[in-house]
Amino acid sequence: MEVTASNFKSVLPEVEAAIKKCTFMSIDCEMTGLNTVHNINVYDTPKQYYEKVRKSCKEFLVIQYGLSMFRYDKDTNLFKHQTYNFYIFRRPMNRNIPDQRFLCQTSSIQFLISQGFDFNKLFKEGISYLNQTEQDNYKNNLEDIYKRRTDQIQSQKNGTNDSIPIPDDAKSFMDEVEKQIEVFLENEESELRLPKCNAFYRRLVYQMKTEKFQDKISLETRQLENKDRILFVTRLKSKEEEKELAKQKFEEQLSELEDFVGFTKVLKMIVDSGKLIVGHNLCLDFLHTIDKFLIPLPEEYEEFKDMAHSLFPKILDTKYMSSSEPFKDLINSNILKHLLDTVCEKPFKIPSIEAENGCQSYSVNDEKEHEAGFDAFVTGLSFISMWKYLAPSEGKDEDIFGDFSLLEPYLNRIFLMVLTDNQYINLGGDDLMPSRDHVFYLTFPREWKANNITQLFSPFGNIYISWLDDSSAYISLYKKDQAAIALSTLSQSDTYSIMTFARRQAILAGIRTPLPSPIMSKKRKSSDGPPPSSKKRRTDSFNSSSGSFTKSKRSIDPIEEEQAECEDSGSSQKHLKMFDENDTWE
Amino acid sequence: MEVTASNFKSVLPEVEAAIKKCTFMSIDCEMTGLNTVHNINVYDTPKQYYEKVRKSCKEFLVIQYGLSMFRYDKDTNLFKHQTYNFYIFRRPMNRNIPDQRFLCQTSSIQFLISQGFDFNKLFKEGISYLNQTEQDNYKNNLEDIYKRRTDQIQSQKNGTNDSIPIPDDAKSFMDEVEKQIEVFLENEESELRLPKCNAFYRRLVYQMKTEKFQDKISLETRQLENKDRILFVTRLKSKEEEKELAKQKFEEQLSELEDFVGFTKVLKMIVDSGKLIVGHNLCLDFLHTIDKFLIPLPEEYEEFKDMAHSLFPKILDTKYMSSSEPFKDLINSNILKHLLDTVCEKPFKIPSIEAENGCQSYSVNDEKEHEAGFDAFVTGLSFISMWKYLAPSEGKDEDIFGDFSLLEPYLNRIFLMVLTDNQYINLGGDDLMPSRDHVFYLTFPREWKANNITQLFSPFGNIYISWLDDSSAYISLYKKDQAAIALSTLSQSDTYSIMTFARRQAILAGIRTPLPSPIMSKKRKSSDGPPPSSKKRRTDSFNSSSGSFTKSKRSIDPIEEEQAECEDSGSSQKHLKMFDENDTWE
Repeated sequence: MEVTASNFKSVLPEVEAAIKKCTFMSIDCEMTGLNTVHNINVYDTPKQYYEKVRKSCKEFLVIQYGLSMFRYDKDTNLFKHQTYNFYIFRRPMNRNIPDQRFLCQTSSIQFLISQGFDFNKLFKEGISYLNQTEQDNYKNNLEDIYKRRTDQIQSQKNGTNDSIPIPDDAKSFMDEVEKQIEVFLENEESELRLPKCNAFYRRLVYQMKTEKFQDKISLETRQLENKDRILFVTRLKSKEEEKELAKQKFEEQLSELEDFVGFTKVLKMIVDSGKLIVGHNLCLDFLHTIDKFLIPLPEEYEEFKDMAHSLFPKILDTKYMSSSEPFKDLINSNILKHLLDTVCEKPFKIPSIEAENGCQSYSVNDEKEHEAGFDAFVTGLSFISMWKYLAPSEGKDEDIFGDFSLLEPYLNRIFLMVLTDNQYINLGGDDLMPSRDHVFYLTFPREWKANNITQLFSPFGNIYISWLDDSSAYISLYKKDQAAIALSTLSQSDTYSIMTFARRQAILAGIRTPLPSPIMSKKRKSSDGPPPSSKKRRTDSFNSSSGSFTKSKRSIDPIEEEQAECEDSGSSQKHLKMFDENDTWE
Repeated sequence: MEVTASNFKSVLPEVEAAIKKCTFMSIDCEMTGLNTVHNINVYDTPKQYYEKVRKSCKEFLVIQYGLSMFRYDKDTNLFKHQTYNFYIFRRPMNRNIPDQRFLCQTSSIQFLISQGFDFNKLFKEGISYLNQTEQDNYKNNLEDIYKRRTDQIQSQKNGTNDSIPIPDDAKSFMDEVEKQIEVFLENEESELRLPKCNAFYRRLVYQMKTEKFQDKISLETRQLENKDRILFVTRLKSKEEEKELAKQKFEEQLSELEDFVGFTKVLKMIVDSGKLIVGHNLCLDFLHTIDKFLIPLPEEYEEFKDMAHSLFPKILDTKYMSSSEPFKDLINSNILKHLLDTVCEKPFKIPSIEAENGCQSYSVNDEKEHEAGFDAFVTGLSFISMWKYLAPSEGKDEDIFGDFSLLEPYLNRIFLMVLTDNQYINLGGDDLMPSRDHVFYLTFPREWKANNITQLFSPFGNIYISWLDDSSAYISLYKKDQAAIALSTLSQSDTYSIMTFARRQAILAGIRTPLPSPIMSKKRKSSDGPPPSSKKRRTDSFNSSSGSFTKSKRSIDPIEEEQAECEDSGSSQKHLKMFDENDTWE
């Protein structure tokens, strides 16, 4: 079901009910840009990864939010589902809340428009939102304003302790205003609307009131629909009347705030439910969700992990799940669409589903790819099918879908695209520290090309180069057993410097930080080659390889014409990836 | 007439013809944001102003361009007009041109949507553009690629001087590919499309070709509509065939470039015409026009002036014209809409106009405010009426509209909003240096409020405070004759520092820069009050006054409830202005 500002309030109760009774929820976001993949290195740590994605969250907006509720119904042995597709956009509210600036990435905009995204609807009818910090600031702000106002009334303060001479070319205007007020005072009108004028003129009018109409009139500035700020004159009110008016205004502003909170209410319901949240390639969506609708993302990675885990005790990333045992060998591509196709066929068996009575949702065959609601729905379906696969074949659905312990190995692990070793953010505990003993951090003269590096390491077999910049890179050995000898042989030089990956990380973390004890990754056998080799990690290999292709002046053995095309400004690097992003972020 | 990518090519010739025969052109732009006014100080110099507006040009996009051609027709004594409203948006072109990021200002987006702007049309059908620098880079880039490609063919280089071992889980894929190629070689098919795979896999395939099919096949990577990069196999081509193919590809890419140049062609026609360009509040539009469609704006202000003047020898800003003699006393508000209303009535007499035969244009009564085309049209009308007003009453239209000398006092002067003294950028020569002898640069402790400053200067009468930040401001005296005594009296202190405006500018410009010799402004009598006083400069006074209102914790004598509302985070400052921007930038 499509939800905009126009039907949000009326839909909210049914959303709340659905959250309360569902077995789990799946989510998906569409944003104005991604802008992360290209600056991520295959050997980044989860912490480094977080810091980069966080930056992108601060720049771009979430403009569509898909939320799909799945409820396993014992009686019918069906999964009932209902899905909502929210348009999210915060218009400028009033002068007390900063006008938002946001970044757009042309490729993302074009991608969305090519998928039929309606930007006019977004900008016209998007639902507002405020994270907790914004709400608090705004509320305190309104309370201060209210307090100051009542103090002003109490103290009869009229705010004029110094009068400004009326500039020559303001005189005619001020005379006109004075006349109007005098006429007003003589007749029966309840209020007088003064001509539109700027803040300086309004200030002069307030000054005139003090000097000439002190005990006769009250002034009030009202902001009209069209944002004009207009002065209204009424006969002098008693302190009590003034206070009553101030109170009313304050209450109006508070209820206005309620409307601004908008979509944030849905997120609060989700958090309160404490239920399982499923997403596909969840990282960016998850970080945006927290930053935009709950609490601004902290700079500290560990602080983020604690906060995120306490907000969402149970999350599951189907991209992580599908690229882990036992699924990695059954699922060739875990692009969302491919994943769905796969889990609809043997050996998988997708349970029967049905839209909740009287609720709109999607069907598998809708051609709505990349509509947030549809992607959330499909993510949920894929998850159900994998969940069922984990249970013993004779298991009954009603037992399976009550048994979250089956999901234990995948819970609270956020897939990290591009990274090697099937790395993930582990919200449930410490992150993996896969062995990087065969990886070195090398610095060298800017003039060096890939060939220089290949030459340097030639005695130790093939290498994979992951460029950091013009004069540094991570080098990984195909023959891992050569690591020790390579290091000792190469460590003496004035032209370049080499150190172990672990040492480099310690330096980046600052000496005081102790080295994390390496835990071997359960996900990859040491026989595996370097990152570019995993079939299940398209984007991974893609980005790794482009890591050398895009700097192909230096690349070891370029693809003839592709190399040619890549040999332009650094832009190509972004581009190589840009074009994959849309599906890498699927 | 509305112009999008779908009709741009067919419309271009008639646009060119119209430019050739018109008397003058008027322009207007719509952008994704403005974001300038609030950081401009009323005492900024044109140079400082330029540097701030330039920054905004780099962040935001022009998304609609209005161009209106006016031709005075002797025979009918009519102004014939035709107007075009171009939607401007550059989609990502290909991997050789960087994917554009751009900033949006929510208030601008909402403003445009409230005016009926169609963002879907923009993103779907916007016309592309490339400034000269972008064109050159792109072209050189294509030539390099072409040259490298032909060299590769000539040298029979296959780019493999080092082979990578095939990773375990790539083997099955590589075997499959090898089979397909062998089958292909045995049958009659002209080409073979290999399965989609990532760059690393493609690289392995190229390697396989070298090792196993060297003298049998050619490989080519083609990018499909959906951006997939797919490998195609054909039987080995001769060098000549290969070269011919490379040449064809190069030529295709060159014509592709032609399409990308898009709207830039219109700007080149305008520049080539050397004709008079009219705009209302031209500054931002003019800078965007140069930066986006011609040459990136230089950092150096003087460099900009030379470049802009040589590109556009004759420009006229109706906002400057209408706020100068003899119009300033006839025109109460020079918001575009108000200006038009005024110049349609006595003492003005708007000449008769008529759309060029068979051409679409607007009529005065169209309710299309803020559609770039309509605003350009209205700007042209207002200009014609003011032009006529300048001529002796008995003057004949055919003499008047052939006589550009009447416009001399207004030519090449770009109105600078917010600034005091009717300041302008003078493309025709040196900028004004109005006397600022009554203005001081004051630095003081952060704790200081307006009252401290007012106290400090109280012996010398009223002052106007224009805040720079928490601990510095420009202070201008109402009583200009007090300047000398004030300076000498106040110059000794440890808590604050004071210096003349001139001295401050010299310091900012760096000691080596000599002080510009003050030229008295012809626009304002020294009897005039400080900036906030000019009725004709709404935005000027507005921003000046808000200069103290927005920091009203310190403001001298606040407006009761407005002050209350203003006393929040710095955001209010932006907002006070934000809401005026839409019309201040009209």
